[in-house]
Amino acid sequence: MMNTPLLINHLFDYSMQASPNKEIVTRTTSGSFRYTYADFGRRTRQLSSALAQLGVQRGERVGTFAWNDHRHLEAYFAIPCMGAVLHTINIRLFPDQIAYIINHAEDRVLLVDPSLLPVLESIRDRLTSVQAYVVFGEAADVPETTLSPVYAYEELLRAAKLDFAYPTDLDENAPMGMCYTSATTGNPKGVVYTHRGIYLHSMALGLANTIGLSEADTAMPIVPMFHANAWGLPFAAVWFGAKIVFPGSAPTPSALLDLMADEGVTLAAGVPTVWLGILRELEQRPQPLKLSKALCGGSAAPKALIRAYEEKYGITFMHAYGMTETSPLATVARLKSRHMDLPFEQRLDFRSTQGYLVPGLEMRLVGDQGDIPWDGQQFGELLLRGPWIADSYYNDERSKDTFVDGWLHTGDVVTIDSEGFVRLVDRTKDLVKSGGEWISSVDLENALMAHPAVFEAAVVGVPHPKWHERPLAFVVLKNAAQATPKTELLDFLRDRFSKWWIPDDVIFLSEVPKTSVGKFMKRTLREQYRDYWMSADEES
Amino acid sequence: MMNTPLLINHLFDYSMQASPNKEIVTRTTSGSFRYTYADFGRRTRQLSSALAQLGVQRGERVGTFAWNDHRHLEAYFAIPCMGAVLHTINIRLFPDQIAYIINHAEDRVLLVDPSLLPVLESIRDRLTSVQAYVVFGEAADVPETTLSPVYAYEELLRAAKLDFAYPTDLDENAPMGMCYTSATTGNPKGVVYTHRGIYLHSMALGLANTIGLSEADTAMPIVPMFHANAWGLPFAAVWFGAKIVFPGSAPTPSALLDLMADEGVTLAAGVPTVWLGILRELEQRPQPLKLSKALCGGSAAPKALIRAYEEKYGITFMHAYGMTETSPLATVARLKSRHMDLPFEQRLDFRSTQGYLVPGLEMRLVGDQGDIPWDGQQFGELLLRGPWIADSYYNDERSKDTFVDGWLHTGDVVTIDSEGFVRLVDRTKDLVKSGGEWISSVDLENALMAHPAVFEAAVVGVPHPKWHERPLAFVVLKNAAQATPKTELLDFLRDRFSKWWIPDDVIFLSEVPKTSVGKFMKRTLREQYRDYWMSADEES
Repeated sequence: MMNTPLLINHLFDYSMQASPNKEIVTRTTSGSFRYTYADFGRRTRQLSSALAQLGVQRGERVGTFAWNDHRHLEAYFAIPCMGAVLHTINIRLFPDQIAYIINHAEDRVLLVDPSLLPVLESIRDRLTSVQAYVVFGEAADVPETTLSPVYAYEELLRAAKLDFAYPTDLDENAPMGMCYTSATTGNPKGVVYTHRGIYLHSMALGLANTIGLSEADTAMPIVPMFHANAWGLPFAAVWFGAKIVFPGSAPTPSALLDLMADEGVTLAAGVPTVWLGILRELEQRPQPLKLSKALCGGSAAPKALIRAYEEKYGITFMHAYGMTETSPLATVARLKSRHMDLPFEQRLDFRSTQGYLVPGLEMRLVGDQGDIPWDGQQFGELLLRGPWIADSYYNDERSKDTFVDGWLHTGDVVTIDSEGFVRLVDRTKDLVKSGGEWISSVDLENALMAHPAVFEAAVVGVPHPKWHERPLAFVVLKNAAQATPKTELLDFLRDRFSKWWIPDDVIFLSEVPKTSVGKFMKRTLREQYRDYWMSADEES
Repeated sequence: MMNTPLLINHLFDYSMQASPNKEIVTRTTSGSFRYTYADFGRRTRQLSSALAQLGVQRGERVGTFAWNDHRHLEAYFAIPCMGAVLHTINIRLFPDQIAYIINHAEDRVLLVDPSLLPVLESIRDRLTSVQAYVVFGEAADVPETTLSPVYAYEELLRAAKLDFAYPTDLDENAPMGMCYTSATTGNPKGVVYTHRGIYLHSMALGLANTIGLSEADTAMPIVPMFHANAWGLPFAAVWFGAKIVFPGSAPTPSALLDLMADEGVTLAAGVPTVWLGILRELEQRPQPLKLSKALCGGSAAPKALIRAYEEKYGITFMHAYGMTETSPLATVARLKSRHMDLPFEQRLDFRSTQGYLVPGLEMRLVGDQGDIPWDGQQFGELLLRGPWIADSYYNDERSKDTFVDGWLHTGDVVTIDSEGFVRLVDRTKDLVKSGGEWISSVDLENALMAHPAVFEAAVVGVPHPKWHERPLAFVVLKNAAQATPKTELLDFLRDRFSKWWIPDDVIFLSEVPKTSVGKFMKRTLREQYRDYWMSADEES
C-alpha cells in the first residue's frame, strides 16, 4: 500500500474539491456572516502565507484566544497545514494561568478577538515568546492597545498571497495542535495533538456507529474551540463537508436556540449546563427544530435532562465522554440495535451511560488488585489506549502520574457492562469515603437533579470526625422564590439509595461554582465547607 | 499521541468486547448455520493455533480457496492476526492461472472447500510451496483425494488451543493479505494489502458519508470473499458489530432473495449481474425486504437497473467503484444533501455515476497533455493515491506500467464534475476509436440496456478498413422467443447519440461471455469478431 501520510492537509484539500459550495455561518453582533468553503479555503491559505511572513516556522506554536467563529476555523487549518502548531488558549482561565501556558508553549504569534485584548494587556509584560499580536477583524476593529506589534487580521489577509504552497513532506506524527487542561493542583498541563491522531479522530466522528457526522449535517459546535478542539467537530465537519454554524462571542441560550432554528442545525455539541439552558429557553419559546443529534459531554448529564430532550422533543441526546487527553471523543452512548425494542425507560438507562468505546480505542477497568470484570456492577478506574490518546503532557514532570505502562489513567471511576457500556461513577478524587465505603457523588447529584424543583445540584465529601467523610449536598432551585424543604429533597433520595449514602445536609445556593469549561468546581465547595462538620461536631 | 499501530488485531479484539452476542449466519445445503461473535472469536483463535502447529510462520502466505461462509471469515481474521498473510484465491480462474498464483505467492497452507478439491487435484503436481491442505468441514466431509497431506478443518480446531496468544509487536505496514487480479495479457498480478491499509479502508466503510456500515446493519457480502476482500465488508462488519449473512456455495438469485428476506438483510453487495438476477426474481416473487442499501460495483450498473430498485422498491442503490488495487472502495455514489430536492430523474443521474471520492483518498484526471479540468465533460484517465491504494504488484515487472510517480493509473476513462462526481466513460482499452474520434462503449451499452427488450448488451470496437474501428453491439434479449428487430434497437440509440456513434451492426447472443468476477469479457468478443468488417469490406 502507498505510504501516504495521515495529515490535516488531506482533510483541507479533500473538502476544497468535494464541497466548495457548502456554507459556513457565524453569528455576529449585527446578524450573521456567511461564506462558502471555497472562500474559507482561499482565506485559510492566505492566513498561512501571512503567518509565514510574520516569521512562523515549522513546528512553532501559534496561539488563538478567541470565541467560535469562521476566522478561528481558518486558524484551525492554516496553522497545521503549514506545519506549525495550533495552540488554542482557554479564555476563561485566570490571567496567571494564561501567562503560564503562553510562555510554556512558547507561542510566537497570538490571534486574538478584539474583545479579549484587555486580558492579554494585563499580562503582556510577562509574555516571553510572543513576537506579534494579530487581532481578528479590520483595522477599525482594533482598539487602542498597549500590545505591540499589533496587526489587523483582515489587512494581513488582503496583503497575503493566494497561492501559498503547503509543505509536501510533513510527518503524520508531527505535532499539529496543543491544548492545556486544568490540573487539580499547580499549573495547567499541555496536551500535544499530532496530524495522525486528529486525522483518525476525525474519521471516528464520521462513523455511523458513533456520531455519524456527514455532509447532510448542519453542525454547530457550542463547546468552545479553545477546549479540546471543540471535540474535533471543526476538523471532521470540514472534511465531510457539513454546513457549519458558529455561535460567535458569548452566546446566550436564547441566541443559541434562534441560531439552531434559523440555520437548520441538525447536530450541536455542548456541556450539560448549555443543554439545560437551551431546554429552559425551548420550553418557554417552543419552535420547530431540525436538531436530530444533541451531543453532550464534558461532564455527566442528569437523566432528567436526557429524558426531556428524548421524550418531549424527540431529539436524540447523545451522551459522550472524553478528556483533553483523548482528543477528546472516547465513548459515545449510541443505542445498539437490540435496545430499539426496549421500553423507553430502559432505553433511557443506556442513553444516560457514557456509552461504548469508539472504534479504534482500547479500554481497561482497573482497581487496586488489577483488572476488574465488566459486569456493570463493580467499579474501578478507566484506562484508555489508542492512536488519538495522548502519551504524555508537554514538558511536564506530572506525565508519569497519568501515563503509566502505555495507558492513560483517566482518574474517572466507572463501571463497564458485558457489552462495553461505560457508566461514570465519579472522579477518583470526588468519590466520598464514608466509614470505609465509597459513595458516588455523581449518582447523588443526578438523583437530586431529577427532582422537579431542582435546577442544579452538587455533592461533595466533607471531612467528618467519625466517618472520615460525609456527603454534603448543594442545590440550586429552579425557582428560588418557591422554597423546597431540605427534608423533601432528602426523602426523594431515600427511595433510591442506601441509608448511609444520603447526604447529611443540603445547602441552597444561587449558583454552583463552575470551571472555565462549565464543569462543577467541587474543589471550591469542598474547601469552603471543609470545617462544616468538624465545627458542628459538638452538636451532631 | 500514543504510537499504537493500526492492525487487524484491533478490529478483532474490539468486536470481541463490543459485540459478543451478535450473530453470524451461513446458508448451507440443509438450511442455515448460525453462531455468535464470541463463538467466531474462539474458533478464530483456534485456527491461528492450528496453523502455527502446521508450521506457518509470520509473513508467510496461507491461501483460501472457498465460497463465502463463516469458516472463510475465521480465516480472514486468524491469518492476519497471527502475522501471516491471507491469500484469497479466485476459484473461477483457469487451473493454469491458479497454479501460477499459488506458486508465485508461495502459499504454505491452503484452506479449501470440499467441493473445490478437484481443481486443486488437477494441478497438484505443479504446486511447489504447499505443505498442507486443510479441507473446510468435518473428517466425514473430506472426500477421497490425491492431495497430501490433508487435514479436516474441524478436527484441527478441536485439537487446537483456546488461548493462543497473538503477537504484540506487529508492524502496521506489514502485509496481512493478498489478492491476484487478472491482466489483459499474461498471468494475474498480485496485490499485497497491509494492516494499516485495511484498517483505514474498514474505517472508511463505516463513514456516514460513504456506506455507513454500522452495528444496526445486517450485512450480506454476495461479492466473493476471493475477490478484493469481498469489498472489505467482512473486516468492517466484524469491527462495527453488524450481523453478517453469508450466502455459502454457488448461491442462485432465488436463494439470495430468500436469504435476504429470512435474515432481514439491510445491506448487500454484488456486481450488476447479481443485482439483475435478484431483480428478476423479486419481480416474479414480490416480498417485503429490509434491504436499504444495495451496494453495486465491479462494473458500471445500467441506469435501468438502478431505476428499478430505487423507483419500484424504494431501495437505495449505491453505485461504487474500485479495483483489487484499491482495497477496493474508491468512490461511492451517495447523494449529497443538495440533490435531495431534485426531481427523481436528476437524482438518478447522480446515482448512476460512480459517485464521489471516499474521504482519505486523492484523485486526478489526466490526459495526454496533463491534468484535465473537472467539468463533467472532458474525459481522461483516473489516477488514485492514498493509504489503501497499492503501490506495486507483488514481485512483478509490470508494476512500472500501472504505478507511476506515486499514483495508481486505473486504466479507467472518466469525467469528473465540479463537485467531484466521477462518471465512468470506459476502460482505456475498450474505447472505440472511429475516424480519429473516441466512442464510449459503456455509454452505448447502458443505452441499449435501457431498452425494455434487452437483458444485457456489450459493445466492442472491431477493426474497420476505413474508420480504424467501428462499434459492434452484442445483445441478449430478455425473451429470446420474442425477437426484436436490429433496426428497432439502433433507432432507439439514434435519439441519444451522434450518428457516427451508432453501432454498425447488432449480434444477438444467448449470453455475454463474462470474466471470473462477472464482468463482460469484451476481449473475447473482440477477438472472435476481429475480421467481421475486414471480410465484409466488399459489401459495406
